[in-house]
Amino acid sequence: MIKIDGNKFKKELLEEYKEKIASEHLDIRLDIIFVGDNGASEVYVGKKLEAASYVGIRTNLHRLGMKTTTKEVQDLIKSLNEDDEVTGIILQSPVPKGVDFDSCAGLIESRKDIDGFTKQNIFALYNNDEELIPCTVKGIIKLLTHYGVNLEGKNVVIIGRSSIVGKPLALALINRNATVTVCHSKTVDLEAFTKNADILISAVGVPGLIKENMVKEGFVGIDVGTTRVFDEASGKNKLKGDFDFEALSKKASLITPVPGGVGPMTVTCVIENLIDAKLEEKKHQKKMNLKINR
Amino acid sequence: MIKIDGNKFKKELLEEYKEKIASEHLDIRLDIIFVGDNGASEVYVGKKLEAASYVGIRTNLHRLGMKTTTKEVQDLIKSLNEDDEVTGIILQSPVPKGVDFDSCAGLIESRKDIDGFTKQNIFALYNNDEELIPCTVKGIIKLLTHYGVNLEGKNVVIIGRSSIVGKPLALALINRNATVTVCHSKTVDLEAFTKNADILISAVGVPGLIKENMVKEGFVGIDVGTTRVFDEASGKNKLKGDFDFEALSKKASLITPVPGGVGPMTVTCVIENLIDAKLEEKKHQKKMNLKINR
Repeated sequence: MIKIDGNKFKKELLEEYKEKIASEHLDIRLDIIFVGDNGASEVYVGKKLEAASYVGIRTNLHRLGMKTTTKEVQDLIKSLNEDDEVTGIILQSPVPKGVDFDSCAGLIESRKDIDGFTKQNIFALYNNDEELIPCTVKGIIKLLTHYGVNLEGKNVVIIGRSSIVGKPLALALINRNATVTVCHSKTVDLEAFTKNADILISAVGVPGLIKENMVKEGFVGIDVGTTRVFDEASGKNKLKGDFDFEALSKKASLITPVPGGVGPMTVTCVIENLIDAKLEEKKHQKKMNLKINR
Repeated sequence: MIKIDGNKFKKELLEEYKEKIASEHLDIRLDIIFVGDNGASEVYVGKKLEAASYVGIRTNLHRLGMKTTTKEVQDLIKSLNEDDEVTGIILQSPVPKGVDFDSCAGLIESRKDIDGFTKQNIFALYNNDEELIPCTVKGIIKLLTHYGVNLEGKNVVIIGRSSIVGKPLALALINRNATVTVCHSKTVDLEAFTKNADILISAVGVPGLIKENMVKEGFVGIDVGTTRVFDEASGKNKLKGDFDFEALSKKASLITPVPGGVGPMTVTCVIENLIDAKLEEKKHQKKMNLKINR
């Protein structure tokens, strides 16, 4: 059994990105819009800013108060869309009740949409013509590829059907020739599906949902669930995944822990999407220059 | 075993639509753009026009020659988008090589997009906030509902991953709480999946692909495959589905034949989408009037 080390792989990738950004003189800027004061967001935003700074990406954090209006966020996004200095824009979720997240995030220009959730990017993913794809999806695929898992023809079972993980992951894996099953809270006899999975990916947030008797010998397990649970032994809150990790480890050929598995990859792929966005922009500029010089 | 009669159900629905259109005074117009002279398209377009006329929908067929350019089709679509008389626009596929289908069809305004393939409509389907959904998908769901099949928690296996049937169908069925597996040409051991399906939907176009030993007793079978095959006995071409129909009939609780199953439902749902588009337009106008009168 190999326990995937997401943090180690993240470090390796960040070194690669740092070198690439320096050697290719990529001038990248990430703008994050953070409305309100959600505690978890505080942590996530901090990690994104830290990783970006580390690899040599300029960052700009727009902190807006709880009373911010939808119009104010929309206006900010519009101005960032038009600003040639800005490579990527992230509107951190969740936002306070007074702000309509979808009508704001939907305004982000697709080429600056680092989270990959806008209409154009989802449509491209749907049509197997991927542009910027959601960071968690990209992270999972990078992990699997890095650890030598071939997706073609594999029986992949995804638990969870959110627009953020389950559904884009299903589309991305179908694009990579896997046979994909999407299970969720209404699935009858979950075990019948998980038991046959070559690769099992859980993204529901029910700690310990997947038990030893529900998986097959040698399966690959990716745990996207992260739930804060009070740990009596330490008297502290701990992050718990959807897997009963200790038990599943015995049967898995490859498995991600929580924390330290998929989580670090999501942050890593924010950086990768920023680099991809910049390279696309440069390609586009080259084309435009060629046209002008003709 | 019940053999689904798509033609009979189509007739019933068309009567309903006809009555609704008359009683609610719905003034609907369908514009079909038909470029070139594809023989199969000739038949499909004819069926759509016939059904529309029958229920009291005005139709306008734009026949364009083989030498039509992308720009010409785009300009036509733009003018139909702006024309308040036009309720729905269909760009019949395929188009001749000189026309870029995607860049034309992508221009159709989402509220007039009767085929349901544009970015906005696919994105809405993806987000479980359905607007106009693809006609074949809608047709299959109508059939299943009409014949009393409850989708929630059912194990649905879809064979085929096209953007026209397999993928939108998967999204629509996930929205309706089914557990969905998408199989395709790269699936290893197809039988392992089909054998456990409560509902098996095949949309690949390989005549006789699904044989008796591949399905379970009492399954519901929906055959979307249609392939023209030369029939030696009659000396004529015949339409063949993906199912070995005679054999599968013995095990199915409910099954669609080819022809006369899903096919007629696709045409029927063109009409239903036109009515839905008109009703949405009226709702929108009412809102606008309220705003103006305030």
